[in-house]
Amino acid sequence: MTNDRELALELDRLVFHSWSAQSKRPTFAPAGGSGSWLWDHDGERYLDFSSQMVNVNIGHAHPRIVAAIAEQAAVLPTVAPSAANLARGRAAEAILRHAPAGMAQVFFTNGGADAIENAIRMARLHTGRDKVVSTYRSYHGNTGAAITATGDWRRIPNEYARGHVHVFGPFLYRSEFDASTAEEECRRALRHLERVIEAEGASSVAAILLETIPGTAGILVPPPGYLAGVREIADRHGIVLILDEVMAGFGRAGGWFAFDVVDDGAARPDLVTFAKGVNSGYVPVGGVIISEEIAATFADRVFPGGLTYSGHPLAAASIVASISAMEDERIVEHAAQIGAEVIGPALHELADRHPMIGEVRGAGVFWALDLVSDPETREPVAPSVVAAIKAACLERRLLVFTADNRVHVVPPCVVTADEVATALAILDDVLAAVAAA
Amino acid sequence: MTNDRELALELDRLVFHSWSAQSKRPTFAPAGGSGSWLWDHDGERYLDFSSQMVNVNIGHAHPRIVAAIAEQAAVLPTVAPSAANLARGRAAEAILRHAPAGMAQVFFTNGGADAIENAIRMARLHTGRDKVVSTYRSYHGNTGAAITATGDWRRIPNEYARGHVHVFGPFLYRSEFDASTAEEECRRALRHLERVIEAEGASSVAAILLETIPGTAGILVPPPGYLAGVREIADRHGIVLILDEVMAGFGRAGGWFAFDVVDDGAARPDLVTFAKGVNSGYVPVGGVIISEEIAATFADRVFPGGLTYSGHPLAAASIVASISAMEDERIVEHAAQIGAEVIGPALHELADRHPMIGEVRGAGVFWALDLVSDPETREPVAPSVVAAIKAACLERRLLVFTADNRVHVVPPCVVTADEVATALAILDDVLAAVAAA
Repeated sequence: MTNDRELALELDRLVFHSWSAQSKRPTFAPAGGSGSWLWDHDGERYLDFSSQMVNVNIGHAHPRIVAAIAEQAAVLPTVAPSAANLARGRAAEAILRHAPAGMAQVFFTNGGADAIENAIRMARLHTGRDKVVSTYRSYHGNTGAAITATGDWRRIPNEYARGHVHVFGPFLYRSEFDASTAEEECRRALRHLERVIEAEGASSVAAILLETIPGTAGILVPPPGYLAGVREIADRHGIVLILDEVMAGFGRAGGWFAFDVVDDGAARPDLVTFAKGVNSGYVPVGGVIISEEIAATFADRVFPGGLTYSGHPLAAASIVASISAMEDERIVEHAAQIGAEVIGPALHELADRHPMIGEVRGAGVFWALDLVSDPETREPVAPSVVAAIKAACLERRLLVFTADNRVHVVPPCVVTADEVATALAILDDVLAAVAAA
Repeated sequence: MTNDRELALELDRLVFHSWSAQSKRPTFAPAGGSGSWLWDHDGERYLDFSSQMVNVNIGHAHPRIVAAIAEQAAVLPTVAPSAANLARGRAAEAILRHAPAGMAQVFFTNGGADAIENAIRMARLHTGRDKVVSTYRSYHGNTGAAITATGDWRRIPNEYARGHVHVFGPFLYRSEFDASTAEEECRRALRHLERVIEAEGASSVAAILLETIPGTAGILVPPPGYLAGVREIADRHGIVLILDEVMAGFGRAGGWFAFDVVDDGAARPDLVTFAKGVNSGYVPVGGVIISEEIAATFADRVFPGGLTYSGHPLAAASIVASISAMEDERIVEHAAQIGAEVIGPALHELADRHPMIGEVRGAGVFWALDLVSDPETREPVAPSVVAAIKAACLERRLLVFTADNRVHVVPPCVVTADEVATALAILDDVLAAVAAA
């Protein structure tokens, strides 16, 4: 099979890769996968603690989803959004089965970015207002409005949309508010949010857009009371609350939605954006879950948004199969349990042995190790350190997700305790070796 | 099977539909398809002369693509964009096989809109300039920058991006330039384009973005010399030429790309956006074909764009199978031939019998009937007339694509002469009945 590997790397030169310089080419060419494992063309097996783009929640090549895709493809691979379609209706029903009360409809998109685009559009048209408030520590996707709503560095070369305002969210370990307790961080972050809204003119703000748990920014589980406080601010000013569950939803944080887990489900959004875990990316898809109130705005008014592949039957069939399998196999419950009983404790133990780990944060199968060169100053490690860790893990056949100064431990929701032990033993060795170097 | 129809319509109430008021629900629920045909849950067959969203170029449920999807899904349904992947490399190779000389790489996206977003991003970063010039009669997709680049009415409630400038393109039948010949229309449209570029400041213009043949705007085949003239203007001012082939490409206009057909292939773009016909929408996908020169800009510079599903293996496998099947079955050649020998002549004959048909425009399987209430003034028919035609066709089990005052005759590329005769006989009756009413 080595020829297939060589062919994959040879043909890859024709592929333009995202978020990278093109002269740096990939060397890893996955050929197949199952559960938490991927293998290359030589049959070498890799333990996937990245879930690729933190999206393969149900694991690789789950047979029920594979079968559903093949079945739907054979009958009707695609159909226009304007028609009714059974797979599409069933997918909406499956998603709404797990959504909070008061959610009425689902708008399907191709991914997370255009889910954000359409949620923003709905909020603007529903309120008749223009501005969208989101946080600097966030990522909301790569299209025009989504990338401008994004707070992290990826926004800066792409700021072509208007009407976006950024605030700091709560993050006690690296507080922007000089806070020393979670309660203080929460209170000050809420005050900062409301002060910016007032200063921007509350009546000009259409939406507050937040990742329920900011993901790529560092898996920043908000302190108790924060989301409920945001909900209260939104209500007070007639602002739509959009919770972005693209990365955190569908099992990742140990609940069907992260807002079910954080703050004991106290915060209820008006719009929810999803993608990734909804079908583990087996077919490109995303969407917006819409409250009754916002859906009613468009009962007799044309919604000026759409796309060719909206409600794609293949994507819909994969969603139905994925959610059904997650229910039947109790995969979300498993993610919550293994996070609380195995991954969390093991990572804290790892942190006790490695001063490089400044903080362990997370829930479910959604964990970050915040790496520091000095535990006192909390100075982030250099990018080269993270690159060395990632490369050493790959050499040991462990895939991890890294961002800035962090290693994210984000396996599929179906990961076993044995696989966690295997992965963390590798990480233990690698951290020791990199710290020594 | 009636229960499935009822269930599809019942569950559809949970689906938020694009470009529509939600109180108006669909009544048609396709259950399956093959070639140019769809059928509902009761087994009623419909002749699809819409190709759904003008995208099912290869026809419904082509067995080779269905098999390729099932095969890839069983092995590796998804993988991160950063890895090398054989299906992805093969898809890039298949697309570049039909692209003009000088095209180096393919960037894969989820659809046409984010292809446009990324092409604009590349042009801006490559030139260091900001403005994008596109035409009022155009549609480029629904995300932040794409919808603002769009010229038609769908832009207006969504104008949240900056840096977009609109011009009029050539359209002799409804000339904006008081032209009376194609040559005059071409010359004046080019002068108008260049004057706007000069007035905006040529050194501030990053890209000229054009649908090679504007599609939803009315299948506006540009007059001879126009695209070559645009290329010349772009070259003179150092502007990137983006040709949007999302709707017109992959057989639709009777060539692999419409720019191969229009102006005898005289105009060569720097960036080409594609989606729809590349895999007939069996899996959501789109992308950008990138010239060597622009690819070189990002050799050592990080491209600040990307998305989770970029180069999705399932989409890639479907592209490889679709292009191979199109090659082996000579589907593009068939589209060109049936357009020139059957559809075009038949539509002109239809126009001779129906004064309501003001103009017949098109090529390949990409035709528009411009409907008028008065052939002299060319006054467009009222929207109710087009709605009545569409409804009467549906009643006769013929699906057509309509926009504004037009019926678009856009069957799959595999349509047979018999199917054309069947469809146009229905359209003939319907036009007569609607005109009489």
